[in-house]
Amino acid sequence: MSSMTRTPDLVTSTQLALQRVRTQAPLVQCLTNSVVVNFTANTLLALGAAPAMVDIPEEASGFAAIASGILINLGTPTAEQRRAMVGAAGAAAAARTPWVLDPVAIGALPVRTALAQELLASRPTIVRGNPSEIIALAGSGGGGRGVDSTDEVEAAWDAARTVASRTGGVVAVSGPVDLVTDGERTARIANGDPLLTRVTGGGCALGAVMAAFAATDEDRWATTVAAVTVYTVAAEVAAAQSSGPGSFAAAFLDELAAIDTQTIGDRAAIS
Amino acid sequence: MSSMTRTPDLVTSTQLALQRVRTQAPLVQCLTNSVVVNFTANTLLALGAAPAMVDIPEEASGFAAIASGILINLGTPTAEQRRAMVGAAGAAAAARTPWVLDPVAIGALPVRTALAQELLASRPTIVRGNPSEIIALAGSGGGGRGVDSTDEVEAAWDAARTVASRTGGVVAVSGPVDLVTDGERTARIANGDPLLTRVTGGGCALGAVMAAFAATDEDRWATTVAAVTVYTVAAEVAAAQSSGPGSFAAAFLDELAAIDTQTIGDRAAIS
Amino acid sequence: MSSMTRTPDLVTSTQLALQRVRTQAPLVQCLTNSVVVNFTANTLLALGAAPAMVDIPEEASGFAAIASGILINLGTPTAEQRRAMVGAAGAAAAARTPWVLDPVAIGALPVRTALAQELLASRPTIVRGNPSEIIALAGSGGGGRGVDSTDEVEAAWDAARTVASRTGGVVAVSGPVDLVTDGERTARIANGDPLLTRVTGGGCALGAVMAAFAATDEDRWATTVAAVTVYTVAAEVAAAQSSGPGSFAAAFLDELAAIDTQTIGDRAAIS
Repeated sequence: MSSMTRTPDLVTSTQLALQRVRTQAPLVQCLTNSVVVNFTANTLLALGAAPAMVDIPEEASGFAAIASGILINLGTPTAEQRRAMVGAAGAAAAARTPWVLDPVAIGALPVRTALAQELLASRPTIVRGNPSEIIALAGSGGGGRGVDSTDEVEAAWDAARTVASRTGGVVAVSGPVDLVTDGERTARIANGDPLLTRVTGGGCALGAVMAAFAATDEDRWATTVAAVTVYTVAAEVAAAQSSGPGSFAAAFLDELAAIDTQTIGDRAAIS
Repeated sequence: MSSMTRTPDLVTSTQLALQRVRTQAPLVQCLTNSVVVNFTANTLLALGAAPAMVDIPEEASGFAAIASGILINLGTPTAEQRRAMVGAAGAAAAARTPWVLDPVAIGALPVRTALAQELLASRPTIVRGNPSEIIALAGSGGGGRGVDSTDEVEAAWDAARTVASRTGGVVAVSGPVDLVTDGERTARIANGDPLLTRVTGGGCALGAVMAAFAATDEDRWATTVAAVTVYTVAAEVAAAQSSGPGSFAAAFLDELAAIDTQTIGDRAAIS
Repeated sequence: MSSMTRTPDLVTSTQLALQRVRTQAPLVQCLTNSVVVNFTANTLLALGAAPAMVDIPEEASGFAAIASGILINLGTPTAEQRRAMVGAAGAAAAARTPWVLDPVAIGALPVRTALAQELLASRPTIVRGNPSEIIALAGSGGGGRGVDSTDEVEAAWDAARTVASRTGGVVAVSGPVDLVTDGERTARIANGDPLLTRVTGGGCALGAVMAAFAATDEDRWATTVAAVTVYTVAAEVAAAQSSGPGSFAAAFLDELAAIDTQTIGDRAAIS
């Protein structure tokens, strides 16, 4: 039974997943918010993936059929983007392309809350959010304060399993300890650094990384654990070399490009 | 009478304002241009405030009622943003939420010039601009060369007082020496570094910082002086450690996160 | 005959062009994609040019008549931007303002492919792209994989000359060795560093730099060679000081601000 997966197995599968991303350079289509679109593309490039920010309605669906993975992030959902997102999610579902939904700031804000519920019908492979967003998506809470969560990660576990049972996919909840569940299996990753919350897109870019990793293997629970682990281990290595959020952002991209399986093996804190 | 406020008082009120921003972490809604939206969010995060870039018409007004402060920056005003801006400004006025108007490049460009005049009806708490923009807003000049000012700060003093008397608020004029007036009281801040003009958003992000500071106290002239002082002192500390505009941008964010009341006390050049 | 232009002449003309950009600070209007708009503005500022991201339909044409040079980049072409682009290109042609077309990811994506063909009617002064984009623009290929080229630079030489004969302008093809042709004269620049491909906008910002250089002299083949040379020499100097793509991006902006004619003389590899 998969809940018995031991930590050493997850460290190994994370190392293998990193190698696959580097080798395959998955093409990741991002429909994401204007605040983080640059950082997200740079994160994917640093890691060795290929970003393509194709987000107009007339092109997004067609591209979703050829992309390796897709991120749909609701941070600044213009009318054009909303149409593109619905089309891309549908095309992804039809083509069985793995796709990630990041329901930024739902609960408090009406348009994106309705859109997130609509997109669930296309069954996202992975849903990524902070605790308040996951609780709001499950229908059991009112959302956080804008993009900030007002709830703790563990308080969102029930909501995460509810969402996972509805999508048949994976749900990842961000926080000091990240939680990744597919409803049956649950992993917790204790890597990372608070500086990641002082750079805008620290969470949003992780959604794109999850899409890149998901493109490389069918076990999306394991690839999501791998994405979170690689990302947060890179963050803690970078934080040790930084004097604040500005130097951290640059060091983080450097470390994503440099990180190797040895560093993963030494530092991964998956349970 | 408030024009007698002595410089030591303004240094002290600046130090207290910085502490309030750090403690209260005000939620700052930004409707701003695509060029600087990332840098603006990172500036707020570095300082300890909470950015929320909610700028679609269906969500902006509702969010304006719960935000602590709001920035409306006319840099790249799409049709959707323009509607969101009018709604958010109205909601801010109704809710008495402090809001900042940054009339980027008005005068030369027709759509934003008309929009800025329309937004004045919602009486911005603070107007921030370069000399040409403030002169254009007062109706007494033709604007600068795109985003660049073709006028000097002191030449905009009359225009600044004209705008302040129309809004009943504060006007801040950017330049080598920044000027902040509420029509009666005027302060000049001589901190800063030319490198701030070599990073896009160097001025725009200051508008968001003014909104964050304004959220913490009713005396918006003093909070605006504080915002300018903290921002420009951080810039001069960062510049001393930089080898060009790229390293400066990172060092500036680091310094905004690190700056303390001691550094303000040592360096603030307010008169 | 111009194809006999010796390399020393091109090095000298590059040095002179750099000095002109610094002295004249050309005003460069950019209608570009949301992913790279910040990096593009910072690139122009670092170099000493003045960016103005005026890209709404109601303002773009009017501004095109006063800008010194224009970049039209099709990376994320919203409906509003598409209208602004057609207007700005027409206004540029009418005002004889030099303008650069960067047909990002055409071939694979339908809306921008049609738009690029429509914009050719306004005869871009310079077309800049990767090999797959130039081949697609010439009508002889299907385009690359999203923003990545699947073709080699030299394979695009025929296509580049086809496009140049159609526009009467210059075509620049990016790759490990960049190629710049006006149909008669062809230069190859062997400077640069692979890190430039690990930062989003590494190519797109070069289009804006080409517009800045084109604003300073009528010989747009020579100014385009100069733009590519200055840009790629700065990249290789920066790469030598970097530990990855994050630190490279900052070092690159620092070096664009610092680069001098001596460094160009020492390193330019133009043939």
